[in-house]
Amino acid sequence: MEQKRTPLDADTILAATEEILRRHGPDKATVVDVARALGVSHAAVYKHFASKQALREAVTRRWLDRNRDTLAAIAADQGMPPARRLRTWLHAVLALKQTKIREDPELFAAYGNLAAAHSTVATDHVADLLGQLTAIITDGARDGGFRTSDAESTARAVLHATAKFHHLAHAAEWREPGIDTELDEVCTLLLEGLQP
Amino acid sequence: MEQKRTPLDADTILAATEEILRRHGPDKATVVDVARALGVSHAAVYKHFASKQALREAVTRRWLDRNRDTLAAIAADQGMPPARRLRTWLHAVLALKQTKIREDPELFAAYGNLAAAHSTVATDHVADLLGQLTAIITDGARDGGFRTSDAESTARAVLHATAKFHHLAHAAEWREPGIDTELDEVCTLLLEGLQP
Repeated sequence: MEQKRTPLDADTILAATEEILRRHGPDKATVVDVARALGVSHAAVYKHFASKQALREAVTRRWLDRNRDTLAAIAADQGMPPARRLRTWLHAVLALKQTKIREDPELFAAYGNLAAAHSTVATDHVADLLGQLTAIITDGARDGGFRTSDAESTARAVLHATAKFHHLAHAAEWREPGIDTELDEVCTLLLEGLQP
Repeated sequence: MEQKRTPLDADTILAATEEILRRHGPDKATVVDVARALGVSHAAVYKHFASKQALREAVTRRWLDRNRDTLAAIAADQGMPPARRLRTWLHAVLALKQTKIREDPELFAAYGNLAAAHSTVATDHVADLLGQLTAIITDGARDGGFRTSDAESTARAVLHATAKFHHLAHAAEWREPGIDTELDEVCTLLLEGLQP
């Protein structure tokens, strides 16, 4: 009986890599490990990912991007006034990161390693967040709820002022019971600063 | 010729420990290392510091406290309007930490280890900063420049919103050229939020 094999695609490789990372931690998951798990040659994997680094970046990017749509939907929700949207969005960023670190500590650690090495995975993730925040500030400036001379630089200041609630250097603090209240207090101060 | 020995005091031990840390790094400086450097028995050192941990905490506390007066003087400077004082103080905190990490990376690393272990050295340092910031906010509330229902909780929100500029998890970012401008932008946003 001949087994019919589907051709190896990038997504199959990434799904296998994610499982390896989850089971064996961020220091594992070389191209050879992944090829072995899939029962293919490492050349077959190399056809899709040129190096261990490229593979790790792709798997982490895919993992991060799973939350992107949720956050983007909040940022673009015209039914919510921008002030409330800003607060809701910042709480959603924190909540999603809290979930990721709790449910997927190994992939979170893999992301931490990439961020420490200044990988574009991390800079792109921050640029994503900044873009969404800029959209909220722009909407608020348009409807008169926020005062800003430059939505992007205001968004950047808000992102910096909330580093404690989204920058992975603070991940250990996200387990503290008062963290949501703290974010709420910072939000209130920032929203008051944005009022015309 | 008999050498006259001054009795060993805590300050002499701390000065020697600081030098050892500076020369050999935060993993060095046991009670035995310090006793050897001073030419005394380790029992003599133990009379002042009960453990390696106690010795490290004391030397790091002394090192941190050297900047305390500079910051406290800014926080208490009645000649400066509270809004300007808040901005000046936050920039001074950043500048002093930038200097410490540049000129004393080994002691900074020792402090980082204690902070990671939730030593009271770190929590006391943060409490110190919070106390100074509360004094500035209180002065601003009194002269009508700031609106706050509770100076300490407002000070805590300001401290959280400026974590990027004083929390040691961000130390690597303090070398980036735009860091002062970033702090300035966050200050402006926060000061607008504090306006009555």
